[in-house]
Amino acid sequence: MIYLFGKLVEEPVDHPIIRPSINAIAETYDLAEREPELATVISPFTGARISRFLHICESAIDLVKQNKMQRKLGQNTGTCFQRCVGMDALNALYSTTYEMDEVYGTDYHQRLKKFIAMTHTYNYVIGGAMTDVKGDRSLAPHQQQDPDMFVHIVERREKGVYISGAKAHQTGCINSHWLMVMPTMRLGEKDKDYAIIGAIPVDAEGITYIYGRQSCDRRSMEGGSIDAGNANFGGQEAMVILEHVFIPWEYVFMDGEYDFASMLVERFTTYHRRSYVCKTGLGDVLIGAAASIAEYNGVERASHIKDKLVEMTHLNETIYATGIAASYQGYATKSGAYICDNMLANVCKHHVTKMPYEIGRLAQDLAGGLVVTMPSEQEFRHHKVGELLQKYLKGKAGIETEDRMRMLRLIENMTLGRNAVGYLTESMHGAGSPQAQRILIARSMQLAYKKRLARILAGIETTKNKEEIVEELSGYFARVFSLGQNENNHL
Amino acid sequence: MIYLFGKLVEEPVDHPIIRPSINAIAETYDLAEREPELATVISPFTGARISRFLHICESAIDLVKQNKMQRKLGQNTGTCFQRCVGMDALNALYSTTYEMDEVYGTDYHQRLKKFIAMTHTYNYVIGGAMTDVKGDRSLAPHQQQDPDMFVHIVERREKGVYISGAKAHQTGCINSHWLMVMPTMRLGEKDKDYAIIGAIPVDAEGITYIYGRQSCDRRSMEGGSIDAGNANFGGQEAMVILEHVFIPWEYVFMDGEYDFASMLVERFTTYHRRSYVCKTGLGDVLIGAAASIAEYNGVERASHIKDKLVEMTHLNETIYATGIAASYQGYATKSGAYICDNMLANVCKHHVTKMPYEIGRLAQDLAGGLVVTMPSEQEFRHHKVGELLQKYLKGKAGIETEDRMRMLRLIENMTLGRNAVGYLTESMHGAGSPQAQRILIARSMQLAYKKRLARILAGIETTKNKEEIVEELSGYFARVFSLGQNENNHL
Amino acid sequence: MIYLFGKLVEEPVDHPIIRPSINAIAETYDLAEREPELATVISPFTGARISRFLHICESAIDLVKQNKMQRKLGQNTGTCFQRCVGMDALNALYSTTYEMDEVYGTDYHQRLKKFIAMTHTYNYVIGGAMTDVKGDRSLAPHQQQDPDMFVHIVERREKGVYISGAKAHQTGCINSHWLMVMPTMRLGEKDKDYAIIGAIPVDAEGITYIYGRQSCDRRSMEGGSIDAGNANFGGQEAMVILEHVFIPWEYVFMDGEYDFASMLVERFTTYHRRSYVCKTGLGDVLIGAAASIAEYNGVERASHIKDKLVEMTHLNETIYATGIAASYQGYATKSGAYICDNMLANVCKHHVTKMPYEIGRLAQDLAGGLVVTMPSEQEFRHHKVGELLQKYLKGKAGIETEDRMRMLRLIENMTLGRNAVGYLTESMHGAGSPQAQRILIARSMQLAYKKRLARILAGIETTKNKEEIVEELSGYFARVFSLGQNENNHL
Amino acid sequence: MIYLFGKLVEEPVDHPIIRPSINAIAETYDLAEREPELATVISPFTGARISRFLHICESAIDLVKQNKMQRKLGQNTGTCFQRCVGMDALNALYSTTYEMDEVYGTDYHQRLKKFIAMTHTYNYVIGGAMTDVKGDRSLAPHQQQDPDMFVHIVERREKGVYISGAKAHQTGCINSHWLMVMPTMRLGEKDKDYAIIGAIPVDAEGITYIYGRQSCDRRSMEGGSIDAGNANFGGQEAMVILEHVFIPWEYVFMDGEYDFASMLVERFTTYHRRSYVCKTGLGDVLIGAAASIAEYNGVERASHIKDKLVEMTHLNETIYATGIAASYQGYATKSGAYICDNMLANVCKHHVTKMPYEIGRLAQDLAGGLVVTMPSEQEFRHHKVGELLQKYLKGKAGIETEDRMRMLRLIENMTLGRNAVGYLTESMHGAGSPQAQRILIARSMQLAYKKRLARILAGIETTKNKEEIVEELSGYFARVFSLGQNENNHL
Repeated sequence: MIYLFGKLVEEPVDHPIIRPSINAIAETYDLAEREPELATVISPFTGARISRFLHICESAIDLVKQNKMQRKLGQNTGTCFQRCVGMDALNALYSTTYEMDEVYGTDYHQRLKKFIAMTHTYNYVIGGAMTDVKGDRSLAPHQQQDPDMFVHIVERREKGVYISGAKAHQTGCINSHWLMVMPTMRLGEKDKDYAIIGAIPVDAEGITYIYGRQSCDRRSMEGGSIDAGNANFGGQEAMVILEHVFIPWEYVFMDGEYDFASMLVERFTTYHRRSYVCKTGLGDVLIGAAASIAEYNGVERASHIKDKLVEMTHLNETIYATGIAASYQGYATKSGAYICDNMLANVCKHHVTKMPYEIGRLAQDLAGGLVVTMPSEQEFRHHKVGELLQKYLKGKAGIETEDRMRMLRLIENMTLGRNAVGYLTESMHGAGSPQAQRILIARSMQLAYKKRLARILAGIETTKNKEEIVEELSGYFARVFSLGQNENNHL
Repeated sequence: MIYLFGKLVEEPVDHPIIRPSINAIAETYDLAEREPELATVISPFTGARISRFLHICESAIDLVKQNKMQRKLGQNTGTCFQRCVGMDALNALYSTTYEMDEVYGTDYHQRLKKFIAMTHTYNYVIGGAMTDVKGDRSLAPHQQQDPDMFVHIVERREKGVYISGAKAHQTGCINSHWLMVMPTMRLGEKDKDYAIIGAIPVDAEGITYIYGRQSCDRRSMEGGSIDAGNANFGGQEAMVILEHVFIPWEYVFMDGEYDFASMLVERFTTYHRRSYVCKTGLGDVLIGAAASIAEYNGVERASHIKDKLVEMTHLNETIYATGIAASYQGYATKSGAYICDNMLANVCKHHVTKMPYEIGRLAQDLAGGLVVTMPSEQEFRHHKVGELLQKYLKGKAGIETEDRMRMLRLIENMTLGRNAVGYLTESMHGAGSPQAQRILIARSMQLAYKKRLARILAGIETTKNKEEIVEELSGYFARVFSLGQNENNHL
Repeated sequence: MIYLFGKLVEEPVDHPIIRPSINAIAETYDLAEREPELATVISPFTGARISRFLHICESAIDLVKQNKMQRKLGQNTGTCFQRCVGMDALNALYSTTYEMDEVYGTDYHQRLKKFIAMTHTYNYVIGGAMTDVKGDRSLAPHQQQDPDMFVHIVERREKGVYISGAKAHQTGCINSHWLMVMPTMRLGEKDKDYAIIGAIPVDAEGITYIYGRQSCDRRSMEGGSIDAGNANFGGQEAMVILEHVFIPWEYVFMDGEYDFASMLVERFTTYHRRSYVCKTGLGDVLIGAAASIAEYNGVERASHIKDKLVEMTHLNETIYATGIAASYQGYATKSGAYICDNMLANVCKHHVTKMPYEIGRLAQDLAGGLVVTMPSEQEFRHHKVGELLQKYLKGKAGIETEDRMRMLRLIENMTLGRNAVGYLTESMHGAGSPQAQRILIARSMQLAYKKRLARILAGIETTKNKEEIVEELSGYFARVFSLGQNENNHL
Repeated sequence: MIYLFGKLVEEPVDHPIIRPSINAIAETYDLAEREPELATVISPFTGARISRFLHICESAIDLVKQNKMQRKLGQNTGTCFQRCVGMDALNALYSTTYEMDEVYGTDYHQRLKKFIAMTHTYNYVIGGAMTDVKGDRSLAPHQQQDPDMFVHIVERREKGVYISGAKAHQTGCINSHWLMVMPTMRLGEKDKDYAIIGAIPVDAEGITYIYGRQSCDRRSMEGGSIDAGNANFGGQEAMVILEHVFIPWEYVFMDGEYDFASMLVERFTTYHRRSYVCKTGLGDVLIGAAASIAEYNGVERASHIKDKLVEMTHLNETIYATGIAASYQGYATKSGAYICDNMLANVCKHHVTKMPYEIGRLAQDLAGGLVVTMPSEQEFRHHKVGELLQKYLKGKAGIETEDRMRMLRLIENMTLGRNAVGYLTESMHGAGSPQAQRILIARSMQLAYKKRLARILAGIETTKNKEEIVEELSGYFARVFSLGQNENNHL
């Protein structure tokens, strides 16, 4: 059941607001056809060619290739194509279930592998459902007035468990085949019933989807093709409400092992924070749009215009470089699955919470004020007013007025409109808000090790203490100075 | 004739998209009632109490009071109240016509005073129509393929002139009584017919208004009160098309004196760039909204939350301080009208092209992702889905779910929606795009004077050259080290 | 007793490291001769013309004039001229003693007025001694292991008190006639003996000065005139150690009134934080130096060079504007002395902790790498090597090689050398480190008032609560919307 | 012949200013002993274990390993260890000579290989001499008034060539065994005599070294161990004057092929700009010093202190990530030698021109004002004054006063003193000033390709033009979407 604007949506595929989000996912399949090296792999489970989004990474290069595919899809759609959460969730679960089984003697890892093999067989789209609605953020799950503020097990039966709760702003959930339900944060002993991971088909009984509205969403319903800005592609986020939804044991991958919730969340965010390299593809589009509108306005040769395009590029490539560096510095977990570098993944995502806003600001600078004051497409199509607009919105000779309008609407779309949701605000909060990254950076920054470097150079007599030795042999700098991880991979 | 969504608007006052912009102007009258000291003056022309927006500044303190009124109106409306262009245009014209008359023996200044007296009599709203559509920005007005890319005189008759052309994104034009048409940039001798300043009633024959659409404008037509974010107030910008519009001589204040176009434009922007202090009022609202949503989410005590509110405040007050400094450093023109400091006005506006974007970004940080994924008001009003949302969108105990939704919609409104147009993009381009300020700063920065300071301290033997002496006795530093300007004013 | 490089300095005036700091103070007297309007006032105590640095402000314009004098002196010396602490201390004491007397019936205010009159009679230099050495910063004065970590009364006698302790990095202390000893922070009841304010002659018994060394200080002892960068002018900071120093009652202005320590400190910092407008004078010099070296290198016409000079100016004028805005918004204390606006003074100083660093960075950008790799003046004076340098360090035709070297050394001086101490690090920490300003901004930002603005516009039904009403009628916004303060002043 | 402070240096090894720079180079040999995996390779020319600094990269991983070695050496020395120029020069020459030979049938590549083999045999230190003194920067080499402003061939003889000119700020030149002389920029046909590349022993006849002075260099001559900040390690830059210096043909690797000068320069800067990863090692030291001083002051638990350490780390890791990303994306040149990605190398270096300044500013923030006002070591060693300082400069209990002083001096050293030269100003200008990177980014940013992405999404009908096709198949995006480069390497 999907609700949108107070109504049940009978046929999502035909809904003009939902359609662009489906097109974006469709492009992940189309790209797989056109560029199989980039967007597919041979499944080690089935031997068939499947989407790279379903692949468990077997090398650092596999991680890097995800980033390259993400950038290309960002370029091709100018929006969120909604498949990274599922990809990163499967990879994070792969190693977490392995280590859970080691500790508890459970068989989650085997179950998960069967599930993954099934997704490979059908080349499915998997959505990851992590973000609980959270209620009062200063309280733990079990402390909330209403226990349903975090998804939890409400009943255990012979064949499986029943869960209730809600997941907010779930990217692409309606366009998925299966949803992977996961906890959203570190849990304590009293939160045991909240320690549930399981897969459910998107049309399972008890699920209600409430579609999230986006800035300028109504424009997709107006019938034209200009004012939407990017008429073909858009993101999708909905609230998923789970009322007593059943999960059979074969699809349960955590049941009460609360002490592994933080491992799952941290591994997921490690993958997912560098997945935001996708935004560099959107950045490429926006840089192209800004360069185009400067050309249409006749100012592309001004030195300050060129310099702003350089600045946009510098920022965009910083996101790309920090993201792929996290992937290239990836290493094998015990399960054999590769995971990227935690520090650099957080550095990447932290830039993503700022740089797209600055790129967007610069795009608006180059666009000129018309980007927010332009009359509607209906005026442009009007027999009399349309003529006036044809005349007065003309830019440089040789450029169609309509093309200039289209380019301005695309910039509006990405900085204020439907795809600003994904390019800006989701860049801020997806995979954790800015402060979440700062906490992770703080945790990895190995001050004891660095303090000793300073003390030695300052000439302060010092013998290493235990904390420093531990920091030297493990953690971030162990990876920085490791030379081997890329040499042992499958290439 | 006003067009919107391809239709002629019969009664603008009743149109749900136009209405909020009228409310914003109405608040300038309401404030005049409630706080007459702040928002009115006694007209030296009529002796009656009139809006401060119609006043010619007689002291630096008059300039400062404009800023204080602007901030208050920004706080009360959270949008652009559309009257500053007219205010700043009248002030700029006052001194420019005076100095034109001195050179050319014309009587524009007397005509203007009569016009101003008339506006005082009726306490009118005056709109300023400056920004031409410009066509190819690399060409001068007379070089354009289509001569109408800039407004110009197409016919001179005994009783007056006829003009044609178009003015883009005219703030509050439909809500004004009169429009003051002015050139938009420095003109050359061949642009003589483009050197026209004149006043026209908004409903003059030959005028067509094409309403500019704003991000999320359709929400104002949905009938609810939540999703619009700020249901009562909004800005207004329209394209004004002038087809053979008549202006009688008594309302003509420049006719061919092309060499005074740049003086008019520069004085106008000097006033108008520090008028962007209004945005600090919007900033106050957005800081309040961010603090509120942090409270509703239960995180207002986190140190990073408090620090972000401090940062927002620091930025907002920087705009305010640089703006009022420009006003306080104001000085008398030959006509007696006071004008603010050019350098500091440009410094103020240049910050306005960046800081609101950063304040907006921080507000989105504090809001959380829900600000862009929240279901529509119609879901909330739906008998069944509404209940689910009541339950699952609940924040801290004691806070109504609806209040939390409303606060998030206000933040969306100011960072992506209708009022983001005014708070962000118009902050970028209104009164000149960022590069325009950098050019003005470059022109005022008196490098010869500063180079000599350096040469003296570096011990390089130096005698003042002529350029340095001129720079020392005039320009920005003459004002910096002047002690008298505020002492001679009316206080 | 003054110690420097492990030796007692017999004659400070002749010491090549101390001399430039004396020259800087001398310029405050010279400017008084050359520009009496800017740098002097008629003393209301004595009727004689005295330095503006000794004046108690009687109007907002008096506050502004301090800023203008500060900028000029910064331009003329390129360094810290060391008199603002005393000026701001006298002003802060003037109103604090007045209000202390009101509460406690003491006569500190009368004593202070006599003291001020005496300083006017002799046109003295007053140093302010505030910054205690502090020991463990997480402990209050009375909690420190060693009680002398903060200056305190060690003995009370019939004729006065004896104090001990030390004040760190005291600007210009050796160049002063009197030092005003003051507490450095909020004190509690147990810190009563630390609540001491009193004036002592700089050569009082028991005082030891330990000269602080500065970056590149040795260059002032090398005998040349190039490598020092700014051979004539430099700052001075020393540690002042007070061992059982006597203060007679007539020079005691607080003795145990610990609850007024925070008022004194806050008023002092309110004045002093906007006194950092002096750094805009240094900024003018550095902008001039950067423009000069670009000219000497033959690149002054490159667009990126011009743009960087604009950026430096934009930052520099932001400091100026926020500083004078704080002064212009000044208001009368109960004592009649004017004080500047607290919020804006903190905004000003907070920019000062960042912008000079960025201006310095840009100056180094324009300078080129030679600024840090240039051979010494002794090479340049060497008969053979000097010729090689003459040839190979030549820039544009018509520019002396020596002048190019001098300009580079000036830039080095202000970004890495002796005057970088004042331009950069002292800009960071003087009058309180960055976090101190953020705390003050947090305290003044009136969130209750702003939250209500947001709630009203969001359509959340609300009645004012008490906290909001208080915030509306007092605090920062009371001053923002006050129209009267400047009208009642002496102008 | 080495000149310093106007005197000929007889024995550089014993000179207290030069010694720390020798120690820094020595650490490259010591590290080779301690961590051979990191700092050595087996020479493919000789089969012996040699310094990695002499290695021609045979894979992308080889490039990455250079970065890891650089960071470690930065951590161990806190300064510039002076060997990267030579390393990057050899690599750039390797592929450039190969391609020159292809075009001109010369045998430079074979000569170079012989030279490299010889350096491997002796495990030499190679310095690269590129930066000409340039004179008037707006003129080409052959246009300069004095032809010696750029190094050029002054005579051709049977056995070789004679060159004259000067190279400014040559890093580590005196500590090298051989210098590789190279052109510094793109050359035209008239600059043919300036197109000279050749190797010369550092003590060749006709060479004069004039030592560059650094901020606070005199402190290394004072005899103590505190005030220098980092007593053991320092950088070295000198001006190299070449008067009729002979190079035999076997050491000449370019002679007149002016059209290959830009290839050499661009390849060199591509390597060298990402070599600035070394500064992250210095950043680690400075972060450690800032964390230490916060601890010594007793404030390490304050949330703003922790947040500033996070910020410093975020910036430092951004440099690291962008640098190694450039290396990981490396690819084979025709010669087989690997080169890193040009765009990302420039992005890395461009951050290096800003972020160390901000890291340094934050370190000064945490240090407190004492970092620039602390008395000299001689005071501390003085029998009486030393006791006072012991008492009054005490921080937290358990921390030695001397240790606190040492840590402050280290921070001073890296932000204002000797090593600020390398950490800040050389970060700005080494391997090209900021604008040089912006020009390279502009050249690589492939706007035609990006514009088309925008036009497609905006719905503007478009067929690819030739420029777009070329851009798609080559340049930066060809590398972005290439999946193979790392798979074919030697791992």
